[in-house]
Amino acid sequence: MKEYGKVKFLGKVTQSDEMSQIEISPEYCEGAYRLEEFSHLIVLYWFHQRDNDVDRSTLRVVPRRHEGAPEVGVFASRSPSRPNPIGFCIAELVKVEGCKIFVRSLDALEGSPVIDIKPYIPRADAFREARTPDWTLFGPSG
Amino acid sequence: MKEYGKVKFLGKVTQSDEMSQIEISPEYCEGAYRLEEFSHLIVLYWFHQRDNDVDRSTLRVVPRRHEGAPEVGVFASRSPSRPNPIGFCIAELVKVEGCKIFVRSLDALEGSPVIDIKPYIPRADAFREARTPDWTLFGPSG
Repeated sequence: MKEYGKVKFLGKVTQSDEMSQIEISPEYCEGAYRLEEFSHLIVLYWFHQRDNDVDRSTLRVVPRRHEGAPEVGVFASRSPSRPNPIGFCIAELVKVEGCKIFVRSLDALEGSPVIDIKPYIPRADAFREARTPDWTLFGPSG
Repeated sequence: MKEYGKVKFLGKVTQSDEMSQIEISPEYCEGAYRLEEFSHLIVLYWFHQRDNDVDRSTLRVVPRRHEGAPEVGVFASRSPSRPNPIGFCIAELVKVEGCKIFVRSLDALEGSPVIDIKPYIPRADAFREARTPDWTLFGPSG
Protein backbone atom coordinates (compact mmCIF):
# COMPACT_ATOMS: atom_id res chain seq x y z
CA MET A 1 0.00 0.00 0.00
CA LYS A 2 1.10 3.57 -0.67
CA GLU A 3 1.96 5.25 2.60
CA TYR A 4 1.37 8.88 1.75
CA GLY A 5 -1.02 11.15 -0.09
CA LYS A 6 -0.50 14.68 -1.33
CA VAL A 7 -2.93 17.41 -0.36
CA LYS A 8 -3.14 20.63 -2.30
CA PHE A 9 -3.64 23.84 -0.41
CA LEU A 10 -6.77 25.27 -2.05
CA GLY A 11 -6.77 28.63 -0.36
CA LYS A 12 -6.33 29.96 3.11
CA VAL A 13 -7.93 31.64 6.07
CA THR A 14 -7.16 35.32 5.54
CA GLN A 15 -9.01 36.66 8.53
CA SER A 16 -9.89 34.99 11.80
CA ASP A 17 -12.18 36.89 14.07
CA GLU A 18 -15.83 36.85 15.05
CA MET A 19 -16.27 36.58 11.30
CA SER A 20 -13.65 34.63 9.38
CA GLN A 21 -12.72 34.85 5.76
CA ILE A 22 -11.53 32.03 3.56
CA GLU A 23 -9.93 33.02 0.30
CA ILE A 24 -9.98 30.27 -2.30
CA SER A 25 -7.22 30.39 -4.91
CA PRO A 26 -8.57 31.53 -8.30
CA GLU A 27 -7.93 28.12 -9.89
CA TYR A 28 -10.31 26.37 -7.43
CA CYS A 29 -12.83 29.16 -7.06
CA GLU A 30 -15.39 27.58 -9.37
CA GLY A 31 -15.76 24.80 -6.80
CA ALA A 32 -17.75 27.23 -4.64
CA TYR A 33 -20.55 27.53 -7.22
CA ARG A 34 -23.97 27.36 -5.45
CA LEU A 35 -22.29 26.94 -2.07
CA GLU A 36 -24.49 29.70 -0.64
CA GLU A 37 -27.51 27.38 -0.73
CA PHE A 38 -26.11 25.76 2.42
CA SER A 39 -26.20 27.43 5.82
CA HIS A 40 -23.31 25.45 7.32
CA LEU A 41 -20.03 24.17 5.91
CA ILE A 42 -17.56 21.47 6.86
CA VAL A 43 -14.16 23.13 6.64
CA LEU A 44 -11.02 20.99 6.57
CA TYR A 45 -7.82 22.93 7.04
CA TRP A 46 -4.17 22.39 7.77
CA PHE A 47 -2.70 23.02 11.24
CA HIS A 48 0.34 24.58 9.55
CA GLN A 49 1.99 25.44 12.86
CA ARG A 50 1.91 21.76 13.86
CA ASP A 51 3.29 20.35 10.64
CA ASN A 52 6.54 19.13 12.17
CA ASP A 53 7.94 15.81 13.38
CA VAL A 54 7.30 16.38 17.08
CA ASP A 55 3.63 17.33 16.77
CA ARG A 56 3.05 14.70 14.11
CA SER A 57 4.47 11.99 16.37
CA THR A 58 2.04 12.78 19.18
CA LEU A 59 -0.20 9.82 20.02
CA ARG A 60 -1.49 10.74 23.49
CA VAL A 61 -2.59 14.08 24.83
CA VAL A 62 -4.26 15.63 27.82
CA PRO A 63 -6.95 17.79 26.17
CA ARG A 64 -6.20 21.41 27.04
CA ARG A 65 -8.71 23.80 28.51
CA HIS A 66 -10.96 20.88 29.45
CA GLU A 67 -10.86 20.69 33.22
CA GLY A 68 -10.54 17.16 34.52
CA ALA A 69 -9.75 15.63 31.16
CA PRO A 70 -7.66 12.46 31.42
CA GLU A 71 -4.88 11.51 29.04
CA VAL A 72 -6.44 10.10 25.87
CA GLY A 73 -5.27 8.93 22.46
CA VAL A 74 -5.12 11.66 19.81
CA PHE A 75 -7.94 10.03 17.88
CA ALA A 76 -10.11 10.53 20.99
CA SER A 77 -9.23 14.24 21.02
CA ARG A 78 -9.42 17.26 18.75
CA SER A 79 -5.83 18.20 19.49
CA PRO A 80 -3.97 19.97 16.66
CA SER A 81 -0.92 17.84 17.48
CA ARG A 82 -1.66 14.61 15.63
CA PRO A 83 -0.16 12.43 12.88
CA ASN A 84 -1.93 14.39 10.16
CA PRO A 85 -2.36 18.07 11.04
CA ILE A 86 -5.89 18.25 9.68
CA GLY A 87 -8.33 20.57 11.37
CA PHE A 88 -12.08 20.06 11.15
CA CYS A 89 -14.74 22.61 11.92
CA ILE A 90 -18.39 23.22 11.18
CA ALA A 91 -18.77 26.90 10.32
CA GLU A 92 -21.82 28.98 9.58
CA LEU A 93 -21.80 30.41 6.08
CA VAL A 94 -22.46 34.14 5.95
CA LYS A 95 -21.84 34.95 2.28
CA VAL A 96 -19.78 34.12 -0.76
CA GLU A 97 -18.24 36.96 -2.75
CA GLY A 98 -16.27 35.76 -5.72
CA CYS A 99 -13.44 33.66 -4.28
CA LYS A 100 -14.05 34.87 -0.73
CA ILE A 101 -16.13 32.84 1.67
CA PHE A 102 -17.23 34.56 4.87
CA VAL A 103 -18.10 32.31 7.81
CA ARG A 104 -18.80 32.43 11.53
CA SER A 105 -17.43 30.11 14.23
CA LEU A 106 -14.42 28.87 12.33
CA ASP A 107 -11.70 27.86 14.78
CA ALA A 108 -8.80 28.03 12.29
CA LEU A 109 -5.97 30.50 12.83
CA GLU A 110 -5.29 33.18 10.28
CA GLY A 111 -2.96 31.83 7.62
CA SER A 112 -4.19 28.23 7.84
CA PRO A 113 -4.29 26.55 4.44
CA VAL A 114 -7.74 25.20 3.55
CA ILE A 115 -7.76 21.70 2.08
CA ASP A 116 -11.46 21.02 1.56
CA ILE A 117 -14.92 22.46 1.99
CA LYS A 118 -18.00 20.26 2.02
CA PRO A 119 -21.67 21.06 2.55
CA TYR A 120 -23.08 20.23 5.99
CA ILE A 121 -26.10 17.96 5.59
CA PRO A 122 -27.97 17.36 8.87
CA ARG A 123 -29.44 13.99 7.97
CA ALA A 124 -25.91 12.66 7.46
CA ASP A 125 -23.99 14.77 9.92
CA ALA A 126 -26.15 15.74 12.91
CA PHE A 127 -26.22 13.25 15.77
CA ARG A 128 -27.41 15.18 18.76
CA GLU A 129 -27.72 12.06 20.88
CA ALA A 130 -24.08 11.01 20.42
CA ARG A 131 -22.46 9.98 23.68
CA THR A 132 -19.18 11.55 24.86
CA PRO A 133 -17.21 11.47 28.09
CA ASP A 134 -17.94 14.22 30.60
CA TRP A 135 -14.72 16.19 30.01
CA THR A 136 -15.99 17.20 26.56
CA LEU A 137 -18.97 19.01 28.09
CA PHE A 138 -16.90 21.91 29.39
CA GLY A 139 -14.27 24.14 27.87
CA PRO A 140 -13.94 24.84 24.16
CA SER A 141 -16.49 23.01 22.07
CA GLY A 142 -14.08 21.82 19.40
CA MET B 1 2.98 29.93 0.83
CA LYS B 2 3.67 26.22 0.60
CA GLU B 3 1.28 24.68 -1.86
CA TYR B 4 1.15 21.11 -0.66
CA GLY B 5 0.95 19.03 2.48
CA LYS B 6 1.81 15.41 3.03
CA VAL B 7 -0.74 13.10 4.63
CA LYS B 8 0.29 9.81 6.15
CA PHE B 9 -1.94 6.81 5.68
CA LEU B 10 -2.60 5.70 9.26
CA GLY B 11 -4.41 2.50 8.48
CA LYS B 12 -7.14 1.34 6.19
CA VAL B 13 -10.67 0.10 5.88
CA THR B 14 -10.28 -3.67 5.81
CA GLN B 15 -13.94 -4.55 5.66
CA SER B 16 -16.84 -2.55 4.33
CA ASP B 17 -20.24 -3.99 4.98
CA GLU B 18 -23.12 -3.40 7.35
CA MET B 19 -20.33 -3.33 9.90
CA SER B 20 -17.01 -1.89 8.77
CA GLN B 21 -13.59 -2.47 10.14
CA ILE B 22 -10.74 0.01 10.28
CA GLU B 23 -7.33 -1.38 10.95
CA ILE B 24 -4.88 1.16 12.34
CA SER B 25 -1.21 0.50 11.63
CA PRO B 26 0.61 -0.68 14.78
CA GLU B 27 2.70 2.51 14.96
CA TYR B 28 -0.42 4.71 15.32
CA CYS B 29 -2.54 2.31 17.34
CA GLU B 30 -1.94 4.05 20.65
CA GLY B 31 -3.85 7.03 19.25
CA ALA B 32 -7.06 5.04 19.77
CA TYR B 33 -6.62 4.92 23.57
CA ARG B 34 -9.99 5.67 25.28
CA LEU B 35 -11.70 6.09 21.91
CA GLU B 36 -14.47 3.74 23.06
CA GLU B 37 -15.83 6.42 25.38
CA PHE B 38 -17.36 8.06 22.32
CA SER B 39 -20.39 6.65 20.51
CA HIS B 40 -19.68 8.34 17.17
CA LEU B 41 -16.49 9.07 15.25
CA ILE B 42 -15.49 11.47 12.52
CA VAL B 43 -13.58 9.39 9.99
CA LEU B 44 -11.43 11.08 7.36
CA TYR B 45 -10.25 8.77 4.63
CA TRP B 46 -8.66 8.87 1.21
CA PHE B 47 -10.71 8.28 -1.95
CA HIS B 48 -7.81 6.23 -3.31
CA GLN B 49 -9.65 5.39 -6.53
CA ARG B 50 -10.03 9.10 -7.30
CA ASP B 51 -6.44 10.10 -6.62
CA ASN B 52 -5.66 10.99 -10.23
CA ASP B 53 -5.39 14.16 -12.29
CA VAL B 54 -8.82 13.93 -13.91
CA ASP B 55 -10.80 13.45 -10.70
CA ARG B 56 -8.63 15.95 -8.85
CA SER B 57 -9.30 18.61 -11.51
CA THR B 58 -13.07 18.33 -11.12
CA LEU B 59 -14.65 21.62 -10.00
CA ARG B 60 -18.30 21.11 -10.93
CA VAL B 61 -20.46 18.04 -10.60
CA VAL B 62 -24.05 16.93 -10.91
CA PRO B 63 -24.54 15.04 -7.62
CA ARG B 64 -25.29 11.42 -8.49
CA ARG B 65 -28.24 9.48 -7.16
CA HIS B 66 -29.90 12.73 -6.09
CA GLU B 67 -32.88 13.17 -8.37
CA GLY B 68 -33.27 16.71 -9.64
CA ALA B 69 -29.90 17.89 -8.42
CA PRO B 70 -28.48 20.77 -10.47
CA GLU B 71 -24.85 21.18 -11.39
CA VAL B 72 -22.99 22.55 -8.37
CA GLY B 73 -19.41 23.33 -7.40
CA VAL B 74 -17.53 20.41 -5.79
CA PHE B 75 -17.38 22.27 -2.49
CA ALA B 76 -21.20 22.27 -2.50
CA SER B 77 -21.21 18.49 -3.00
CA ARG B 78 -19.90 15.38 -1.30
CA SER B 79 -18.54 14.02 -4.59
CA PRO B 80 -15.43 11.84 -4.30
CA SER B 81 -14.06 13.61 -7.40
CA ARG B 82 -12.56 16.76 -5.92
CA PRO B 83 -9.19 18.55 -5.67
CA ASN B 84 -8.26 16.64 -2.53
CA PRO B 85 -9.70 13.12 -2.45
CA ILE B 86 -10.65 13.32 1.22
CA GLY B 87 -13.74 11.45 2.34
CA PHE B 88 -15.63 12.43 5.47
CA CYS B 89 -18.12 10.32 7.35
CA ILE B 90 -19.69 10.15 10.77
CA ALA B 91 -19.70 6.50 11.84
CA GLU B 92 -21.13 4.79 14.88
CA LEU B 93 -18.48 3.14 17.01
CA VAL B 94 -19.23 -0.48 17.86
CA LYS B 95 -16.02 -1.59 19.56
CA VAL B 96 -12.26 -1.25 19.61
CA GLU B 97 -10.14 -4.42 19.73
CA GLY B 98 -6.46 -3.67 19.78
CA CYS B 99 -5.71 -1.87 16.51
CA LYS B 100 -9.08 -2.75 15.00
CA ILE B 101 -11.96 -0.32 15.16
CA PHE B 102 -15.41 -1.63 14.30
CA VAL B 103 -17.99 0.89 13.13
CA ARG B 104 -21.42 1.11 11.53
CA SER B 105 -22.52 3.41 8.69
CA LEU B 106 -19.08 4.12 7.29
CA ASP B 107 -19.37 4.92 3.59
CA ALA B 108 -15.72 4.21 2.70
CA LEU B 109 -14.85 1.44 0.27
CA GLU B 110 -12.75 -1.49 1.38
CA GLY B 111 -9.09 -0.63 0.96
CA SER B 112 -9.50 3.11 1.58
CA PRO B 113 -6.60 4.56 3.54
CA VAL B 114 -7.67 6.27 6.76
CA ILE B 115 -6.04 9.64 7.40
CA ASP B 116 -7.65 10.76 10.65
CA ILE B 117 -10.17 9.82 13.29
CA LYS B 118 -11.67 12.41 15.63
CA PRO B 119 -14.31 12.13 18.33
CA TYR B 120 -17.78 13.36 17.40
CA ILE B 121 -18.90 15.97 19.93
CA PRO B 122 -22.54 17.04 19.47
CA ARG B 123 -22.22 20.50 20.94
CA ALA B 124 -19.59 21.33 18.31
CA ASP B 125 -20.76 19.15 15.46
CA ALA B 126 -24.54 18.68 15.52
CA PHE B 127 -26.58 21.35 13.73
CA ARG B 128 -29.92 19.77 13.10
CA GLU B 129 -31.42 23.02 11.90
CA ALA B 130 -28.81 23.59 9.15
CA ARG B 131 -30.40 24.60 5.86
CA THR B 132 -29.68 22.70 2.64
CA PRO B 133 -31.14 22.76 -0.87
CA ASP B 134 -33.97 20.30 -1.57
CA TRP B 135 -31.90 17.89 -3.68
CA THR B 136 -29.98 16.82 -0.58
CA LEU B 137 -33.16 15.53 1.07
CA PHE B 138 -33.40 12.47 -1.18
CA GLY B 139 -30.96 9.82 -2.27
CA PRO B 140 -27.87 8.83 -0.33
CA SER B 141 -27.38 10.83 2.83
CA GLY B 142 -23.67 11.51 2.35
